[in-house]
Amino acid sequence: MSRMHLNLSLMTPGHFRHAWRLPHADPLAYLDIDHFQRLARIAEAAKIDAVFLGDGPALRGEIEDAPGTGLDPLVLLGNLAAVTTHLGVIATSSTTYNSPYNFARRFQALDHVTKGRAAVNVVTTGTPAAAANFGLAEHPAKADRYRRAHEFLDVVTRLWDGWEPGAVVADKTTGRYADPARIHRIDHHGEFFSVAGPLPVGAGPQGRPVIVQAGGSEDGRDLAARFADVVFTVAQTLDGAVAFREDIRRRAEGAGRDPNDVKVSLGVVVLTSATEGEAQRRERELHATLPIDRLAGVLLGNLGLSAKDFGPDDPITAADLPDAVPGGAFSTGFATAVRALIAQRPHTAGELVRGSAGGAGHRLLTGSAVAVADDLQAWFEAGAADGFTVMPADTAADFGNFARLVVPILQDRGLFQAEYHDPTLRGRLGLAPARPIGALP
Amino acid sequence: MSRMHLNLSLMTPGHFRHAWRLPHADPLAYLDIDHFQRLARIAEAAKIDAVFLGDGPALRGEIEDAPGTGLDPLVLLGNLAAVTTHLGVIATSSTTYNSPYNFARRFQALDHVTKGRAAVNVVTTGTPAAAANFGLAEHPAKADRYRRAHEFLDVVTRLWDGWEPGAVVADKTTGRYADPARIHRIDHHGEFFSVAGPLPVGAGPQGRPVIVQAGGSEDGRDLAARFADVVFTVAQTLDGAVAFREDIRRRAEGAGRDPNDVKVSLGVVVLTSATEGEAQRRERELHATLPIDRLAGVLLGNLGLSAKDFGPDDPITAADLPDAVPGGAFSTGFATAVRALIAQRPHTAGELVRGSAGGAGHRLLTGSAVAVADDLQAWFEAGAADGFTVMPADTAADFGNFARLVVPILQDRGLFQAEYHDPTLRGRLGLAPARPIGALP
Repeated sequence: MSRMHLNLSLMTPGHFRHAWRLPHADPLAYLDIDHFQRLARIAEAAKIDAVFLGDGPALRGEIEDAPGTGLDPLVLLGNLAAVTTHLGVIATSSTTYNSPYNFARRFQALDHVTKGRAAVNVVTTGTPAAAANFGLAEHPAKADRYRRAHEFLDVVTRLWDGWEPGAVVADKTTGRYADPARIHRIDHHGEFFSVAGPLPVGAGPQGRPVIVQAGGSEDGRDLAARFADVVFTVAQTLDGAVAFREDIRRRAEGAGRDPNDVKVSLGVVVLTSATEGEAQRRERELHATLPIDRLAGVLLGNLGLSAKDFGPDDPITAADLPDAVPGGAFSTGFATAVRALIAQRPHTAGELVRGSAGGAGHRLLTGSAVAVADDLQAWFEAGAADGFTVMPADTAADFGNFARLVVPILQDRGLFQAEYHDPTLRGRLGLAPARPIGALP
Repeated sequence: MSRMHLNLSLMTPGHFRHAWRLPHADPLAYLDIDHFQRLARIAEAAKIDAVFLGDGPALRGEIEDAPGTGLDPLVLLGNLAAVTTHLGVIATSSTTYNSPYNFARRFQALDHVTKGRAAVNVVTTGTPAAAANFGLAEHPAKADRYRRAHEFLDVVTRLWDGWEPGAVVADKTTGRYADPARIHRIDHHGEFFSVAGPLPVGAGPQGRPVIVQAGGSEDGRDLAARFADVVFTVAQTLDGAVAFREDIRRRAEGAGRDPNDVKVSLGVVVLTSATEGEAQRRERELHATLPIDRLAGVLLGNLGLSAKDFGPDDPITAADLPDAVPGGAFSTGFATAVRALIAQRPHTAGELVRGSAGGAGHRLLTGSAVAVADDLQAWFEAGAADGFTVMPADTAADFGNFARLVVPILQDRGLFQAEYHDPTLRGRLGLAPARPIGALP
């Protein structure tokens, strides 16, 4: 039987961003490297495939009531690699606000430094506030961002592939270090970039770092089908998840790839404790941290509705929803997921906010460790995903609870690895090496 | 008595780039994180202030006979922070080929992750090959690069200062996380950049990471006088070093700063062993790795001379040198240092190459541990520098030899710290905190 892959999100204070208000919370934990090192060690002890950190290069408007974007993920995750030996690291980075040469170098360095455990979660950055930090008069249109992302990843992957195996000769007698004929420029000239290459050094153990891609829109799916090793996605309904995975596999095939080379990792916010009662109590406690009126208003806006027409406790029916998903901070994937819920039965904005970690879009799964394991098993076996990116509701509690309470159940059931079998993340995900690794003769 | 500061360069295989040819050398050590972690632990055991890594975002043309630029320094040094607790880390980064917002975020993250041990070595990137990796048709002129660097550092330091102390309120009862009135946009609109800000999170323990600056030209000195906490410099003669330090201090005063807030760290290539005889033997061994004809030709070109007119063993006199330093890969600082040597007495190109680690410009100091300690003491006491950036000739040998053989002598003489006295690099360098650090009420 195939096994599920499991990633754990490091987002702090948690996917309930208001979890900093809980009595036990350290409100500055998201800046504390000791906190993240503890989490990384917990994840590795549980044989988690990789830890994950999102990002967006701007201050979010909601800083008045919760921390948003934290430290640069690449620096943070590069550090965590030193206190772990098997754990993969997935750092989010923007194709809109980086140059491909630096991006390729940094993730190649991460692959060397982690000895083959590096992954990049590629995003085009939907946060409008980011544009003004990079000299743009306005937030670039989605279609432009994705066209740029295509070219960006084309450049980056070709840079990663630039050194052939055996390019380093290192003949001490003759003094010949490398064979320039096996180190290739790319001489790319495209719509967005001109990049000569090659990179200063050859590939790390994975050939290419694992590429994770998170867009649920048409453009996002096409990008994933072409470049992604792992698609990170959101779904509020099992049917929606199954349909998404089938669609991605079909598109990968259409792009000439083996559909088994594209893994779907479904995001789910987990709130779990040893007992159902304790989990329910903690959920009530977390819900009490939420500024419901404001969050309901944001969610309504993201759905194209107005807080003037809908209070937090007014039911929203499918008929209330506008045909088109409005542009803005909400991604297509999130909007689609929430709309699918409403299509099943009317929901109030308050319910939607509470059911998705304050309105962040991902499904909230609250329950005892057994109940959470049952749920993930059911979704996995129904073909909803190849694995899950588990997003702790309150990271201070749920990261450890998931690793220590839920994971052993999944391992006992044979659904998740009990040991790390392959030194590289790519290998553990069942992906072929991107290319053969050079070695000295 | 004031003490010297000591940094150690991690450059591998060494500042003699051809040291990979030595019998004991691992030609791929410059990609091996275990190698760098070993070095970091050795440096910390010796109470070295910081380790240093240079960079340039391009493949160097000389890859046929030696490794050049290695892994991205930020990723590598962020990792080394996890295996050390006091050691500072100085990562080189380019103001020409980065955006200031990302740059500010990454080094701010490094400061958080290291708990106040982060430094950036700011360079404008003199390598012509870099331009083509970033969409530029030609290598930008030095004056343009420095004008950009001024604006870049102005933006970066203002971003770093954006969160006032106390901006994070974290009132669990009211749910107020931060006070937006104490988090400042910069709304910069300049010649090169438009950056709104603020950064997503507040400052690390140092307020601002330590800024190291390495340019010896007029433009470089002015930039240093305004922004640098530490000026990394090159000198082949004691008089030249003393004059440079006095000039920097005068310029800092002219820029309205206390000259004691700008420290000069003089680069010196060190080849050392327990005995003089062993050091001399190793120097001969290292010299034998050099492709003298080619390196002499490069050096001659950098001096504005031609290999057609001067063989490796032909003396060059001061009268042979053109008035102006030609543009190119050689920095003004390096050219000035080499010209000062020739002004003292004629040198052959071969001598100059052998005396500066294959022509890299820095002074080669070969000798027993006692002789090296004597030399550094003499230069320090003559006012040549506030400290040294020691560049191992053959890193596999000289990094450890310097830390284990030379440092204890300097400590015994009271010239170098025997313990780390301050948790931050800025504090250990005798620099005031850049600004007060915010804390929760």
